Amino acid sequence: MNNPPVDESLDPADWEALRRLAHQAIDDGFDYLQGVRDRPVWQPVPEAIVQRLRQPAPRLPQGAESAYGEFKELVMPYAMGNTHPRFWSWFMGNGTPFAAVGDFLAAVLNPNMGGGNHMPNHVEAQVVDWCKEIVGFPAESSGLLVSGGSMANFVGLAVARNSRAGVDVRAEGVAAIPRTLITYASVEVHSCVQKAIESLGLGARSLRKVPVDAGFEIDVDALERMIVEDRAAGRQPFCVIGNAATINTGATDDLDALATLCDREHLWFHVDGAIGALLALAPGHRHLVRGMERADSVTLDLHKWLHVPFEAACVLVRDRKAHREAFALTPEYLERTERGLASGALWFSEYGLQLSRGFRALKVWLSIKEHGLDRFGRLIDRNIAQARELAALVQAEPDLELLVPVATNIVCFRYNPGGLSDEQLNALNEELLIRLHESGIAAPSYTTLHGRYCLRAAIVNYRTTSADLPVLVSAVREIGASLPRP
Amino acid sequence: MNNPPVDESLDPADWEALRRLAHQAIDDGFDYLQGVRDRPVWQPVPEAIVQRLRQPAPRLPQGAESAYGEFKELVMPYAMGNTHPRFWSWFMGNGTPFAAVGDFLAAVLNPNMGGGNHMPNHVEAQVVDWCKEIVGFPAESSGLLVSGGSMANFVGLAVARNSRAGVDVRAEGVAAIPRTLITYASVEVHSCVQKAIESLGLGARSLRKVPVDAGFEIDVDALERMIVEDRAAGRQPFCVIGNAATINTGATDDLDALATLCDREHLWFHVDGAIGALLALAPGHRHLVRGMERADSVTLDLHKWLHVPFEAACVLVRDRKAHREAFALTPEYLERTERGLASGALWFSEYGLQLSRGFRALKVWLSIKEHGLDRFGRLIDRNIAQARELAALVQAEPDLELLVPVATNIVCFRYNPGGLSDEQLNALNEELLIRLHESGIAAPSYTTLHGRYCLRAAIVNYRTTSADLPVLVSAVREIGASLPRP
Repeated sequence: MNNPPVDESLDPADWEALRRLAHQAIDDGFDYLQGVRDRPVWQPVPEAIVQRLRQPAPRLPQGAESAYGEFKELVMPYAMGNTHPRFWSWFMGNGTPFAAVGDFLAAVLNPNMGGGNHMPNHVEAQVVDWCKEIVGFPAESSGLLVSGGSMANFVGLAVARNSRAGVDVRAEGVAAIPRTLITYASVEVHSCVQKAIESLGLGARSLRKVPVDAGFEIDVDALERMIVEDRAAGRQPFCVIGNAATINTGATDDLDALATLCDREHLWFHVDGAIGALLALAPGHRHLVRGMERADSVTLDLHKWLHVPFEAACVLVRDRKAHREAFALTPEYLERTERGLASGALWFSEYGLQLSRGFRALKVWLSIKEHGLDRFGRLIDRNIAQARELAALVQAEPDLELLVPVATNIVCFRYNPGGLSDEQLNALNEELLIRLHESGIAAPSYTTLHGRYCLRAAIVNYRTTSADLPVLVSAVREIGASLPRP
Repeated sequence: MNNPPVDESLDPADWEALRRLAHQAIDDGFDYLQGVRDRPVWQPVPEAIVQRLRQPAPRLPQGAESAYGEFKELVMPYAMGNTHPRFWSWFMGNGTPFAAVGDFLAAVLNPNMGGGNHMPNHVEAQVVDWCKEIVGFPAESSGLLVSGGSMANFVGLAVARNSRAGVDVRAEGVAAIPRTLITYASVEVHSCVQKAIESLGLGARSLRKVPVDAGFEIDVDALERMIVEDRAAGRQPFCVIGNAATINTGATDDLDALATLCDREHLWFHVDGAIGALLALAPGHRHLVRGMERADSVTLDLHKWLHVPFEAACVLVRDRKAHREAFALTPEYLERTERGLASGALWFSEYGLQLSRGFRALKVWLSIKEHGLDRFGRLIDRNIAQARELAALVQAEPDLELLVPVATNIVCFRYNPGGLSDEQLNALNEELLIRLHESGIAAPSYTTLHGRYCLRAAIVNYRTTSADLPVLVSAVREIGASLPRP
């Protein structure tokens, strides 16, 4: 039989050797981050490298040094690229060097943040309190750190569903709700909201997509009419979702108007601020999210404009009791003691889906202390200013076309040399973007607005400087000019 | 106005200073782990320390050195304690030093694992393939790394719900399902399953709790009778959950019998192997999970017996198409290109709730390479052997009482000096456990079996040696003898 040596362990046989390797990892990691500007934003993964990973699980130890060597050779050169100053795809933060050290420290302590009486839980409580400050929520509201905006929206909508259904949804299920619960959000709402509605059993058809105006903001009058129609048809309007910056264009709904409407109509008001809630930190743009502080629940992402590494987001719920009642179970093996390890009031597992939870709070706590909130706000303002600079550069070129005015930090544009149909321009720009990625020069992403494919630069990047913007413009024009006309 | 200096950044002004701090963190972290045995398992957090965290968010930078100093002073000494050789509470792994370095490296690269063409996604794909190997699932099945067993069970049950309901649940909602979907699991099922059922809108009343036998394993005959009754009453049995090791006692249901039943009755078979799926690695105990490989979906936790730091678990689904169809949305801004950053087949966001996802795969990948799967299996066997040793020590003492035979690695016992009622013993043992925690000597948790409060040692700990077990026994007897009789 495979009897282990008595002292077999997952701790290293040679602590000093592993410690040296860890120091090497620090140096390699710091070199990687200090040199990020000198590398391509992104490069394709060679098929031969992918094939190296088509191996069954090793049964025997290969040791930490060898495993680390494979990481350096196979993985490190072919990352996503969102650490780079000219990465502007989707809506991602960069991460920071000190927060990465924070993730190491979190893993060393390795507490389970589901509950219990230990200091890491108090760190999360403080971080949640700071999120309340940012949003303008009262101290007695509740909150939870979660993996990202998808889960934050899920939690907020779960609380809304359970507290407004008029029946005991947890026990009886959605089928017991007398009238169909209807949720409203603009057509620009993030897809994760639909996923949450589906997962909660409410059905995507219960999510009404409200038209937007020319600035891609929700049409509040249209929303009011839809509520009246649904009520007349015997359905139960129950929740309105306001976008604090949309993923497509960065537009922010009139949150104050939505809050007033929800007050009057007795609807749950949820703000999806995954992108834009942190605008509250930005002196030049905090007016955009006025009204957010009146919501019943708010989502904010911390791995976007707070730039902590993935994953970190927060959901806030005004009504702490409703929040806990949506998720707490407290089975016997989780019952509280008065003192000891299992005591304390901080049982975060009662406020969301997770029981075991990691110490994601630490990197947030360290980052906010390192930089102070004001710096994050200034950098948000700077990204927005950069988006306007980029838009001006686009508008100055005859063969580039800005497709929508810049609302915040997102620039949607296309290469348009003239004389081509929208369909031809779509094909041209699609190929252009791929070649731009392959060039390693810059990495915007793309979307489609009114049927027109566009390059989409979402500047969520503290490493971007104004000098990076003409680099993008030049590369797009050069690649565009080099492409065969469709 | 607060115009930032042109070069303001979240990167350090002095890279070398921050690099030195990171090296200091490595040394402090390694010292912490090397010295873990010399510290108390757990110690209460002084109220004065908690008060230090009752501060509003800093607006101005305090710098990384100062933030790190606060972490060392306020947080590091007061962690949960699950790194310690005599921590046996709930069911938690220790974490490992090299995996903690892995979390640093993951945060340095900081890829978004929602999708896209980059090497970190291939690492996750390989880790998921390795999980299939462990469980015995076919290569063409699908899987996803998630935060923990709660989310893995949620995903598995969401796929079950959506693929077996007979209507388009995603569009129409649970209310459109013609007959109530009924899920079955033993009374020992983990509470997170109920939470998943509730969140999915099926209602906790649709979760039938099946009785267990004397060994706390599901009574399959009773289950069959319940299915017949539900069908006769017009309800729709649709899913059976088998426990691969329960949280209370470590018992494992007869998974082979459940698989056969589900085959015959056309029910979805989900195995909650958060605790026990990794028994498949243990030469002495893999027979316990025979039948798991026949499931439709399986949950396995990697932050338990694989000892990677929180959070890491995996859900596997036999039917890849059903898995994707339960979650994929593919809105326009996530559409695929053929080449470039947004290309590739690995869009993990289509298989779960999260869109943005962190690189949790890296620590798993590094750990499995470092140690090889066989070592983890041997250490699981060793923990189970240690549980039997502990049970024997308990049984050898006249004032200790073993409350249930040891199924795997969980020992449930109490101090029982004789002459006291169950009620009195409950109060006595509750106080005893708190004082044991406060002593810092050892940290079992507790549960209640047939109304009897017991100390519960779940040995999921590669640092535990046989010499640690009599330390617990002595401490329990000494504290027990010192307590005033109720």
